[in-house]
Amino acid sequence: MSERHDAVEVIAAKRDGGALSDSQIDWVVDAYTRGMVADEQMSALAMAILLRGMDRREIARWTDAMIASGERMDFSTLSRPTADKHSTGGVGDKITLPLAPLVAACGVAVPQLSGRGLGHTGGTLDKLEAIPGWRAALSNEEMLAQLDDIGAVICAAGSGLAPADKKLYALRDVTGTVEAIPLIASSIMSKKIAEGTGTLVLDVKVGTGAFMKTEALARELAETMVALGTGAGVRTTALLTDMSTPLGLTAGNALEVRESVEVLAGGGPDDVVELTLALAREMLAGAGRGDVDPADTLADGSAMDTWRAMIAAQGGDADAALPTARHTQVVPAPSTGVLGRLDAMAVGLAAWRLGAGRAAPGESVQAGAGVEMHAKPGATVTAGEPLLTLHTDDEWRFERALAALEGGYDVAAPGATVDTSPLVIDRIG
Amino acid sequence: MSERHDAVEVIAAKRDGGALSDSQIDWVVDAYTRGMVADEQMSALAMAILLRGMDRREIARWTDAMIASGERMDFSTLSRPTADKHSTGGVGDKITLPLAPLVAACGVAVPQLSGRGLGHTGGTLDKLEAIPGWRAALSNEEMLAQLDDIGAVICAAGSGLAPADKKLYALRDVTGTVEAIPLIASSIMSKKIAEGTGTLVLDVKVGTGAFMKTEALARELAETMVALGTGAGVRTTALLTDMSTPLGLTAGNALEVRESVEVLAGGGPDDVVELTLALAREMLAGAGRGDVDPADTLADGSAMDTWRAMIAAQGGDADAALPTARHTQVVPAPSTGVLGRLDAMAVGLAAWRLGAGRAAPGESVQAGAGVEMHAKPGATVTAGEPLLTLHTDDEWRFERALAALEGGYDVAAPGATVDTSPLVIDRIG
Repeated sequence: MSERHDAVEVIAAKRDGGALSDSQIDWVVDAYTRGMVADEQMSALAMAILLRGMDRREIARWTDAMIASGERMDFSTLSRPTADKHSTGGVGDKITLPLAPLVAACGVAVPQLSGRGLGHTGGTLDKLEAIPGWRAALSNEEMLAQLDDIGAVICAAGSGLAPADKKLYALRDVTGTVEAIPLIASSIMSKKIAEGTGTLVLDVKVGTGAFMKTEALARELAETMVALGTGAGVRTTALLTDMSTPLGLTAGNALEVRESVEVLAGGGPDDVVELTLALAREMLAGAGRGDVDPADTLADGSAMDTWRAMIAAQGGDADAALPTARHTQVVPAPSTGVLGRLDAMAVGLAAWRLGAGRAAPGESVQAGAGVEMHAKPGATVTAGEPLLTLHTDDEWRFERALAALEGGYDVAAPGATVDTSPLVIDRIG
Repeated sequence: MSERHDAVEVIAAKRDGGALSDSQIDWVVDAYTRGMVADEQMSALAMAILLRGMDRREIARWTDAMIASGERMDFSTLSRPTADKHSTGGVGDKITLPLAPLVAACGVAVPQLSGRGLGHTGGTLDKLEAIPGWRAALSNEEMLAQLDDIGAVICAAGSGLAPADKKLYALRDVTGTVEAIPLIASSIMSKKIAEGTGTLVLDVKVGTGAFMKTEALARELAETMVALGTGAGVRTTALLTDMSTPLGLTAGNALEVRESVEVLAGGGPDDVVELTLALAREMLAGAGRGDVDPADTLADGSAMDTWRAMIAAQGGDADAALPTARHTQVVPAPSTGVLGRLDAMAVGLAAWRLGAGRAAPGESVQAGAGVEMHAKPGATVTAGEPLLTLHTDDEWRFERALAALEGGYDVAAPGATVDTSPLVIDRIG
């Protein structure tokens, strides 16, 4: 039998609730990448997948087909084991910045291929680009040399990895088909498996500021991705972590770099330190270095040394002053009491509207823009004292940011007990 | 509030199981027609509609939006009432040919805008084009003049009626989204309502040779369309009719014209006569001429006179010999007994493969090709005597037609009782 298929046959099979065969999946992913299946056919298939689902075999095969559409990287020449981390995205999520140099300083290489932000969650590359001189684009050779030399690299993913995913993601973005767990899982995992990391730790966010709003959905995504990674020979675990309130006290590019450097210097907000260490322990354990305690490496300054070397290797000046926004505006606490809720989505939207994020691919972002928080839920606040400080280069943006923040925080009576979620909800894998 | 929407918002609303608002429907149909909503967005929406459904209000609004995308015809200057018929398509369904002149001869004008065939069911225009000289394209003025003068016109629908439907239908055809009852109903009814007929009779086919394979689906489609027509002020009824076996004894363009002329001459197969009269009675009753018995008009020769005038008005020579295929091959009855089953889909596919239909829009068809049947289910057949005669201009097509017919008929023991469905299953409206 020939393995020829046609698009309508494949679409109809999924539309009618069937499982796609390996041959159908291989054919449709390859034909789409080569332009033989049209965008309007793939978007109908994506909607059918979203509404009908895929079983684990189909998702694994779909992921394999996306990997096969491009090149794979090879880190086998490195003297160190490799470990990478992927977050599904949250507000104030700067964890990659302290995490990569920390894990590298513990003896495990971290090849972190990152993306740019779109919408209310920031992108790691946008944050690092706030550092004067730092550049995201590296050749494969530069990346390998830096990994060998310093042990950590955070750079832009080349276009050669899983090009099918790149094309499909752009299509899903405009056709209402982003929210399909099989497609989210295969999109993330195809890139991470093609990247060639030995260990992968997934930070799957759940809550108002996360893509997955419920724990059940986040757990399904995490379990799907752990199964995909494990099946592909990557040691994969996942942490389900809370994203009902922002991570740390900053959301915005330079603001988050500043906070990350505080963590590397032994300070920084408790939640950022806690999650950085939890993810570092997962990465080290997966890479066979479970004997190293990353808290010691953070305390002894070697993580900071690695950070400085990593930034310098990509042209950045770790000592330069970070850019600041031209205008700031304080949002005072409306009453005295305990901060009960500070909503991640509200803060994320405000930071976005202040200029920290982009509305369309290719737009530039403001390095200094964002939201600085002066309290976390559970802390005491005083009426009229600063609760938030908004930063932007454009004064007209304040009004739009304030609208985003409306209803985004509550102050409870003084002495009230505030129910906060644990930061790490569960571990999967 | 502005009525601006965006495509992802509309897609997501339907994807998540909601009903689209009037404003969303108006916006998306208009924006798609003007190219502001892309094909890949509309196909994702079509798949979401297929899998999530639409309520009656949504379908009616969608239909209105498609009508609003183009022009409407106006028959109010005619001295006669108007009635039209639409069939959802079947094998050997030549009913429009005798029906239009018959109803016109009874005093009701029939403005029949038709299409060409694609796949296993034939198109009315393809059949009439078997008549030497006959042309399908008429201007609106020619169509009105012919309706006034002769009372019946069968011609190609202009591109001005419901252009949104034309664009959407082409998209659905390649994206596995044809099989959505809301979209089928709105596609048919937008054209018929825009056409401006006063009365509409729907012939909704059910069975192996029909688009709707089950009575439940056919009934749902019929009820949806009757509600749409009635809501738009068109007197609309539907007959559910059997399409498990072909209509009449011929499937193919010139073959069906010949059979239609036999009916107009007072002969022809019983089932073709029965359905022609049943549909004529519905059209006459809707148009206020329920007092006229079309059987009399068929018997007195005036329907044949109208046929000849209608063909001549469009350049056709009703007296010319019809084209015949260059080759014929007989399929003998495999045993002596009672013909138990003669499957509509098998015969339709065979006729298609013999050259009577096209595989892609724009292809030409063979006027003489098709299948001639020598018995209907329930009739006695004799081993070795002709059961079918296949007609084609290309000898190589016989093998492919015979493959389509394999398993498509059964001969029961002599004297066996064969269970045949009634031709008209139900009336709706």
